Amino acid sequence: MNQTLEPTIRDLVRKAATGELHPLTIVADVLHRREHHKDNPIFISMVSPEALRQRAEELAALPLAARIKMPLYGVPFAVKDNIDVAGMPTTAGCPEFAYTPTKTAFVVERLLAAGAVLVGKCNLDQFATGLTGMRSVYGSPINPYSADHVSGGSSSGSAVAVSCGIVNFSLGTDTAGSGRIPAGFNNIVGYRPSSGLLSASGVVPCARSLDTISLFGNCTDDVRRVLVVAAGCDEDDPYSTKLVSRSVSVAAPVFGVLAPQNDHFLGDTYARAAYERGVAQLQAQGYSTVTIDFAPFKEISDMTYLGPSMAERTAVLGEFINAHPSATYTAVVRDAIVKASDFSAVDAFGMLHRLKALECKIERETWSRVDFLCVPTAPTIHTREAVRRDPAWGSTSLGTYTNFAPFLGLPAISVPNGFRQDGLPTGIMFVGNRAGDMELLRLAESFGA
Amino acid sequence: MNQTLEPTIRDLVRKAATGELHPLTIVADVLHRREHHKDNPIFISMVSPEALRQRAEELAALPLAARIKMPLYGVPFAVKDNIDVAGMPTTAGCPEFAYTPTKTAFVVERLLAAGAVLVGKCNLDQFATGLTGMRSVYGSPINPYSADHVSGGSSSGSAVAVSCGIVNFSLGTDTAGSGRIPAGFNNIVGYRPSSGLLSASGVVPCARSLDTISLFGNCTDDVRRVLVVAAGCDEDDPYSTKLVSRSVSVAAPVFGVLAPQNDHFLGDTYARAAYERGVAQLQAQGYSTVTIDFAPFKEISDMTYLGPSMAERTAVLGEFINAHPSATYTAVVRDAIVKASDFSAVDAFGMLHRLKALECKIERETWSRVDFLCVPTAPTIHTREAVRRDPAWGSTSLGTYTNFAPFLGLPAISVPNGFRQDGLPTGIMFVGNRAGDMELLRLAESFGA
Repeated sequence: MNQTLEPTIRDLVRKAATGELHPLTIVADVLHRREHHKDNPIFISMVSPEALRQRAEELAALPLAARIKMPLYGVPFAVKDNIDVAGMPTTAGCPEFAYTPTKTAFVVERLLAAGAVLVGKCNLDQFATGLTGMRSVYGSPINPYSADHVSGGSSSGSAVAVSCGIVNFSLGTDTAGSGRIPAGFNNIVGYRPSSGLLSASGVVPCARSLDTISLFGNCTDDVRRVLVVAAGCDEDDPYSTKLVSRSVSVAAPVFGVLAPQNDHFLGDTYARAAYERGVAQLQAQGYSTVTIDFAPFKEISDMTYLGPSMAERTAVLGEFINAHPSATYTAVVRDAIVKASDFSAVDAFGMLHRLKALECKIERETWSRVDFLCVPTAPTIHTREAVRRDPAWGSTSLGTYTNFAPFLGLPAISVPNGFRQDGLPTGIMFVGNRAGDMELLRLAESFGA
Repeated sequence: MNQTLEPTIRDLVRKAATGELHPLTIVADVLHRREHHKDNPIFISMVSPEALRQRAEELAALPLAARIKMPLYGVPFAVKDNIDVAGMPTTAGCPEFAYTPTKTAFVVERLLAAGAVLVGKCNLDQFATGLTGMRSVYGSPINPYSADHVSGGSSSGSAVAVSCGIVNFSLGTDTAGSGRIPAGFNNIVGYRPSSGLLSASGVVPCARSLDTISLFGNCTDDVRRVLVVAAGCDEDDPYSTKLVSRSVSVAAPVFGVLAPQNDHFLGDTYARAAYERGVAQLQAQGYSTVTIDFAPFKEISDMTYLGPSMAERTAVLGEFINAHPSATYTAVVRDAIVKASDFSAVDAFGMLHRLKALECKIERETWSRVDFLCVPTAPTIHTREAVRRDPAWGSTSLGTYTNFAPFLGLPAISVPNGFRQDGLPTGIMFVGNRAGDMELLRLAESFGA
């Protein structure tokens, strides 16, 4: 898999911009692959072959001087269908919710201006709520590594589009782990930037204080090239911020790792073995590791589903659901959003206070000793059958290692960690300091290199 | 009024540290003044004359080399009775809530280490909830400028203790305007630092995300001298932060002022005239002013009482009130805290989202054009009789200009603005950028100078 014409964005752009590889050739290849995977419900809507070829011709018509200034010239990409593209419907995974925006999302606009080629809008767990990829009324994207296992979600289609080699990168969103869980399950890179680094203008809100656009790619360098284009403070997005990085001792970084007695693998010995092999790999590369107390992180992760946090989604989606009782919903998603109305404002502020206290504890006990965390991307991978039996547990059980980063605003990246003993891919995740995105990407890139 | 032995901290410290003024003389003067105002319910508990004299003797026994390194050597101060001092009860204005801490609050500890002399713990509106000074079960501190008018609250005792000249400075707290409203009514300086600048360890929480310790003094320089000692990041307080100031063009600052057609003075023509005179004064000093759209600030200010924000207080105080139904409450305070339980978590997150959107609008439309705001401290001053008739309105009506700063984390300082046509004192308030506290104090100091 992952066999696009050129495996890296760097090589693709170099060849395309200099004329060695014509944009029409790239587009033909994309169309071929998209057709090949047409039975996999990766996309909710697609850019037509004609429009793709027209885009290729427009790019090809640019003078060389212009082309070489476009850092994503000719690079095919896809976006999750909760991100606006002018003239294409935005569904957020619910047909009745759909609208056709006249304005393209801030981040997509920047990618297009850099020469990237939009291929389609990807399937997702409804309202970006879920971690399995089995919560869409548009079908469930198939994991190219195992049809019996979930693809992960909520950015299921975006991850599979990259994993199947249809596009070189894609945009997801990440509110709990939606931009990382499916990366781990599909053997690609999934990166959640520091909160506020990427504008959310033109993105359907989920839980606004936790949401961010996320990036999928085949390697860390690809993701970095997209980030550099995508990032920019957007004064129309209240959650977009100018971030100030604090210095990190990346010369000899220390990684916080799980204690051996930690048991958040749900009994999955393959997952545990893969993680331990990843940590051994880090150590073999000469990096220092120290064990951390994961309890406060776990308590924060659990806030996603256990407590009033879900009401932040109700605050933006509850009105639509109430007004459209018979729209096409994924029951488990609708129920979670509706049920959160039962929590009180006192519960909400109590949770926010507890979160602050835990953040303080983590600062004092963990960040004072480590530069990065290294944790599994997910505790395990579920079969589709298991999730069908218990859709709520299917998601809540997967978020242990991903869900805390959004609450803390931290950047995190899931990178491939080889294969488990049962042949399934597995991810390992690095978490950095807020605004320390570049250092985080550099470290992630060095893993296994 | 304001006639302590030495009118400024600078002079007092210089004379005391060099031996020109003996600490026992200072303490004798404090005791004399405290006795003189003994019928005014300024204090809830007092440091005994013996303990004060002992403190004076201990300070006097220090070698000169040590004394001159203590920036508040011999300076008498008082603290609001929601701030812990080891061995003295903390009531927060409710006798049954009282406890006697074994640890002194972080900030108080620093002031004592700098040589300041604690005189007593001050009366306050119960649970620091209110802006009138008429919400205490320990009596209502009397405004030295008019017994018929309110002293302002909730830091009523702290402000009156300075205004009556008993102490040179005092600590209040400010969650909505409690550290500034009584400054304006008592002709002194009241300063709310940027959120997170002063530790809240050892302070009874009110609404944690909005709370800060505040400072009262006779002049801006006094307040700055206290701030420099008090400030320090406290790793045990989750809301304490290391602040990074953004550069402000203080060489030729622009002040945002109210449009002439703005009518948030509740019909008080004296208050309006005083504000307009203050703005004219600024202009006469050569400062530029531009009118701002106050509507988004007003909408934020109104969030304090209209909406789920009060539930943040319920989150910390609700449990006590439920468990002690027959404790001695100020009815209007108890009712406001209990009633907020009716709001849902959805309401709370909806409010937080709206707050972010307004903050973004203000950034774009106001802070892009101005360096400081200049607004009245309060729209008017109420008579005691009017507040007795309608205690809820008495507070809510006063917070128009103070309540928004806590939600935005902004520093703000109320300074005396002379007297109204009816002879009452009146304050004018300057609001700065987050973390721009030093620039704000410098500007406030220049007002009228």
